[in-house]
Amino acid sequence: MRGVYCNGSSVRLRTDLTPSTPQPGEVEVAVRVVGICDTDLQLAQGYMGFQGILGHEFVGVTSEGQRITAEINNPCRICPTCQAGLSQHCPHRTVLGILGHDGAMADQVCVPAENLHKIPDAIDDREAVFIEPLAAAFRIPEQISIGPGIRFTVVGDGKLGLLCAWVARSLGAEVSLVGRHPEKLGLAGEGIRPVLLSEAQTMARSQDVVVDCTGSRSGLETALPLVKPCGTVVLKTTIAGYHELSLASIVIDEIQVIGSRCGPFPKAIAALEARTIDVRPLIGAEFSLDQAEEAFQAATRRGARKILIRTSPR
Amino acid sequence: MRGVYCNGSSVRLRTDLTPSTPQPGEVEVAVRVVGICDTDLQLAQGYMGFQGILGHEFVGVTSEGQRITAEINNPCRICPTCQAGLSQHCPHRTVLGILGHDGAMADQVCVPAENLHKIPDAIDDREAVFIEPLAAAFRIPEQISIGPGIRFTVVGDGKLGLLCAWVARSLGAEVSLVGRHPEKLGLAGEGIRPVLLSEAQTMARSQDVVVDCTGSRSGLETALPLVKPCGTVVLKTTIAGYHELSLASIVIDEIQVIGSRCGPFPKAIAALEARTIDVRPLIGAEFSLDQAEEAFQAATRRGARKILIRTSPR
Repeated sequence: MRGVYCNGSSVRLRTDLTPSTPQPGEVEVAVRVVGICDTDLQLAQGYMGFQGILGHEFVGVTSEGQRITAEINNPCRICPTCQAGLSQHCPHRTVLGILGHDGAMADQVCVPAENLHKIPDAIDDREAVFIEPLAAAFRIPEQISIGPGIRFTVVGDGKLGLLCAWVARSLGAEVSLVGRHPEKLGLAGEGIRPVLLSEAQTMARSQDVVVDCTGSRSGLETALPLVKPCGTVVLKTTIAGYHELSLASIVIDEIQVIGSRCGPFPKAIAALEARTIDVRPLIGAEFSLDQAEEAFQAATRRGARKILIRTSPR
Repeated sequence: MRGVYCNGSSVRLRTDLTPSTPQPGEVEVAVRVVGICDTDLQLAQGYMGFQGILGHEFVGVTSEGQRITAEINNPCRICPTCQAGLSQHCPHRTVLGILGHDGAMADQVCVPAENLHKIPDAIDDREAVFIEPLAAAFRIPEQISIGPGIRFTVVGDGKLGLLCAWVARSLGAEVSLVGRHPEKLGLAGEGIRPVLLSEAQTMARSQDVVVDCTGSRSGLETALPLVKPCGTVVLKTTIAGYHELSLASIVIDEIQVIGSRCGPFPKAIAALEARTIDVRPLIGAEFSLDQAEEAFQAATRRGARKILIRTSPR
């Protein structure tokens, strides 16, 4: 079968792959559309040392004809971490297209049946690709309190930044979005204050919550000065390698820094179905699976919207 | 009058100082005993750029003959931060012997009347010097939940580390203390598991809470691997300068890192009065104010217990 294969240093389309055999508890899914995520771009450069088929934001169809997507963590479900309700952090887990498990940039993918989520008809394939990253944005209100009266700032005007800003807006927070790109800030829409990075210092020490979605090493350093004493910085950026960082302000201002990863799929699906969050402004160009290498080129371009790869004919 | 003066690069006893004049709202206090804190040693090396009289852990007597200690933050009490209940973080604050306000290593000190706490007779002068650092340890349970079933590890077997461990033990947590020094670990006493730093990896990914009291740049890097996914690292170490740090595990394991500074004096006073926490094992040598420079020498020695300076005759 066809698949987008990462060998740890580059990415290429292969047509000689053997379809995966479902492991116990897994089902086969015929892939329809898959998105390219910044994590895929990092994996292509050697992050996590992943070798295999990429792709973790996808829509597919089961052998019963059900249109689905799937959560990306495949926990063992039996270890003490899983039993303690932290299966997202199972030390034995594989992660779809990221860690020890082939992903969905292929004609076929196998995923645990327990990970499946049915996609309502109101959500089309291209929107459904956003369920996984939107769920990650919905992880934030599971970790900290967000609502009216909360001054919530997202640093980073990329796709994940916009999703986090929209989630906070949907919960009634006072939302600002800090970025370098007026055209990307313009996508945020009504009710979100756009702030150019060069003017962010006007918000110094004023925000209850600042979310780092920069995807860059300087993200935390940009975020920290904006948060008020006893406020919270949420780290959404997974960056390999080391940061140079002063921790003194975290202690002196008693700031809470919290890492945030995968989130609740049902909340993302409900928000897309009800259109309380509309991801259509983030949809970029669509490529066929045979054009996967061009799709990766397009995704690497600065300011690219979500690049989609369509596996099956429309 | 006499006082221990920090010029930003060294510390010396001066006898030519003019006693401070109380500012509005302040009272004069005749100092009896003052402790040397690691922060004093850092200030002596230029931390915060402080120039003035050191000393923020003290016992004194007011002109009415009341034996007191005082909280160290002197907020403006009128700015929005103060009005929001965050007066410890008032941007206009001075801090006793640390920032813009002379401290208590002198014959006399002036402090805001609102900062005073009466010391019960059951607490002698030498124990009372620990009220300020013990209050800082009691800040942790104000920030996060600590009690039975919580696996709580302190990294750093210095004085603040022991105080934090004792506070957690007094609240019923399962407490471990990680350090390099068997003799200091031995001070922890019953109900606290001593762990040599070289064996700390046996606790990897198992602790609900890990507190960095190392006072060293490597503290956070030591603490992070011990905490379980979704667990908490409390930073008690204020270190000037930059850290080299990988943040990836904070995001991937969704760890919360929280800075922790000053805490509730009444809780510390109550614990000392009831002897639910007994700080006497931490009391080290006592010097007169005239021997202050020797006292600083003694405090700099590795593994020193709390060095006290007695201003008044016994």
